[in-house]
Amino acid sequence: MTVTNADRMECSVHLSADGRAVEILDQTQLPNRTVTLRLTTAREVYDAIRTLAVRGAPAIGICAGYAMYVLALQRRDLPGPAFRAAMEADGAFLISSRPTAVNLSWAVQRMLRVLSDHADASVAACVELLRRESLAIHTEDIEMCRRIAEYGLTLVQPGDGILTHCNAGPLATSKYGTATGPIFLGRERGMAFRVFADETRPLLQGARLTAYELERAGVDVTLICDNMASVVMKQGWVQACFVGCDRIAANGDFANKIGTSGVAILAKHYGIPFYTLGPSSTIDMACPTGAEIRIEQRDPDEIRTMWYREPMAPPGVKCYNPAFDVTDHTLLTAIVTDRGIVYPPFDVNLKNLFEQSE
Amino acid sequence: MTVTNADRMECSVHLSADGRAVEILDQTQLPNRTVTLRLTTAREVYDAIRTLAVRGAPAIGICAGYAMYVLALQRRDLPGPAFRAAMEADGAFLISSRPTAVNLSWAVQRMLRVLSDHADASVAACVELLRRESLAIHTEDIEMCRRIAEYGLTLVQPGDGILTHCNAGPLATSKYGTATGPIFLGRERGMAFRVFADETRPLLQGARLTAYELERAGVDVTLICDNMASVVMKQGWVQACFVGCDRIAANGDFANKIGTSGVAILAKHYGIPFYTLGPSSTIDMACPTGAEIRIEQRDPDEIRTMWYREPMAPPGVKCYNPAFDVTDHTLLTAIVTDRGIVYPPFDVNLKNLFEQSE
Repeated sequence: MTVTNADRMECSVHLSADGRAVEILDQTQLPNRTVTLRLTTAREVYDAIRTLAVRGAPAIGICAGYAMYVLALQRRDLPGPAFRAAMEADGAFLISSRPTAVNLSWAVQRMLRVLSDHADASVAACVELLRRESLAIHTEDIEMCRRIAEYGLTLVQPGDGILTHCNAGPLATSKYGTATGPIFLGRERGMAFRVFADETRPLLQGARLTAYELERAGVDVTLICDNMASVVMKQGWVQACFVGCDRIAANGDFANKIGTSGVAILAKHYGIPFYTLGPSSTIDMACPTGAEIRIEQRDPDEIRTMWYREPMAPPGVKCYNPAFDVTDHTLLTAIVTDRGIVYPPFDVNLKNLFEQSE
Repeated sequence: MTVTNADRMECSVHLSADGRAVEILDQTQLPNRTVTLRLTTAREVYDAIRTLAVRGAPAIGICAGYAMYVLALQRRDLPGPAFRAAMEADGAFLISSRPTAVNLSWAVQRMLRVLSDHADASVAACVELLRRESLAIHTEDIEMCRRIAEYGLTLVQPGDGILTHCNAGPLATSKYGTATGPIFLGRERGMAFRVFADETRPLLQGARLTAYELERAGVDVTLICDNMASVVMKQGWVQACFVGCDRIAANGDFANKIGTSGVAILAKHYGIPFYTLGPSSTIDMACPTGAEIRIEQRDPDEIRTMWYREPMAPPGVKCYNPAFDVTDHTLLTAIVTDRGIVYPPFDVNLKNLFEQSE
């Protein structure tokens, strides 16, 4: 496949047409307002990441890559040492906006490595190298999502019902998304699916983002509360579950948005295939099982008061608010990656996936 | 047990101290405001039921019983025929406020039957009979909840974690509630439980009502989003699930608030006992299986916009919003009723329950 500039421009994060700013679709404003933010300073990028105006690991990585290029461009008249020092400082500052986001530091480090790999290059040459690297990060993500979508599409038939949880769509990634990739790619090819989107409490990414993306693309999408997945499955309306993943352990256990493990248990009960879709970089072979994945606990007010006109729970009531859960590999039909589809036994086949490719 | 006037007065619906009004705790204002409404006209009672200021089948029945008495008292100077005609008209009007609420028409009919059973009684005598009947409806509900709570309490140990869904507590019933009965009764006896309350989207009865009731009673309650039940169970924090029921079929399938079937499937997966608690009047032996239970579909805006400062989903997005779901009897450990605990095989043992008692 060829990735064109038009492909990149339609992503929620891209380099502006004049090449001087990172443009992002402000995800905090969706679905009520479609606001494009033009980011030109390190502070603006930092704030956009911190406030979740840009969210989704791949989207954050793409944003950070472009930000490093845009900042370099502004410093093209500096002497070499000052230029390099400023870029190092900007990189560290950007990484500090969301320290746990792996793709953020990965993208910044990748951009800084261009500089260290060309220690003798002129500032002008460095700026051009950074431009190409930032475009490469984006292009590679589009290609990766495309490959995941192609593999995922082999698992469903036109007319199938697909249930998804949270948002692993274009807004969070680029072009097709991961979990939603087969749906968007199938749509391009005239295949119609019937999609059920869990609203995904407490942050409602399913209602605000996934339903928005799918509806805008003309996909038949039905929004449900998380607790309605069981009855939707029971009616026979779901032929496959597609969810994203934040981290996959070597045995196939994986962490994803809170509620994913519940969907997996329901799918098993009703005999529905359950797939997680994500880049092979999400597979952490150094992490033996899901038990080793630490789960972030978040603010109780996300459950008690956030979004609401007034508190929806007693003000001081204790809440348990894990951001993610771990789904046991025994609940998983297959893992769909950019390198292919991995079936059980996952411990053996995940190892093979990397050995074959290297 | 003896039911005292103090027991009745502490219920969310009761006869006012001066005996001239129905007093209800306005459930639409919880948890932010504790507002007691004093209802003295048929119109006020009608509106309170229609707007869900009073909700929960037993609570609505108690409210309707008291309303009929209060209205009778206001007409104690009418001639007999005019009195009886006015009571019939008021009864029909009250029933029309929520036509599908079985307890509402049941309570009104029961009050009107007092009049038809005493066709020759004076108006003054009728008013007194209606006063006693309304108190009897309330007293019987307290006694019934107490018996359910006693049976339920035999199923748990002090220190156990109990997960509940929606609200089947004192606000919806009287005194102890049904699903929460063992928790409140155990609390009175110094037994501490650790309760997890599902928030219960879209109407958030768990967050607004159950968490409020339990916290006010000093119970250790943790509020969770519906999609967190799986991870709470996985940690080993839940020893029993207690849920209410709206209708139980002859084979043990039962309808309850949307999401109940999902909780039951999770409980089965994690090997946790799953109980439904309710009055034996909820068992409909004329309904062979859950397949015959019709499920009410509700307004999509309950998911898209209700409660929120602004819409949380694309304005026109399709939603599926069933009010209830049916839980298969194979997922159910036992049914806890005021007549005892019913174990599988439910088709045989539910029949026995009624034959033994009659």
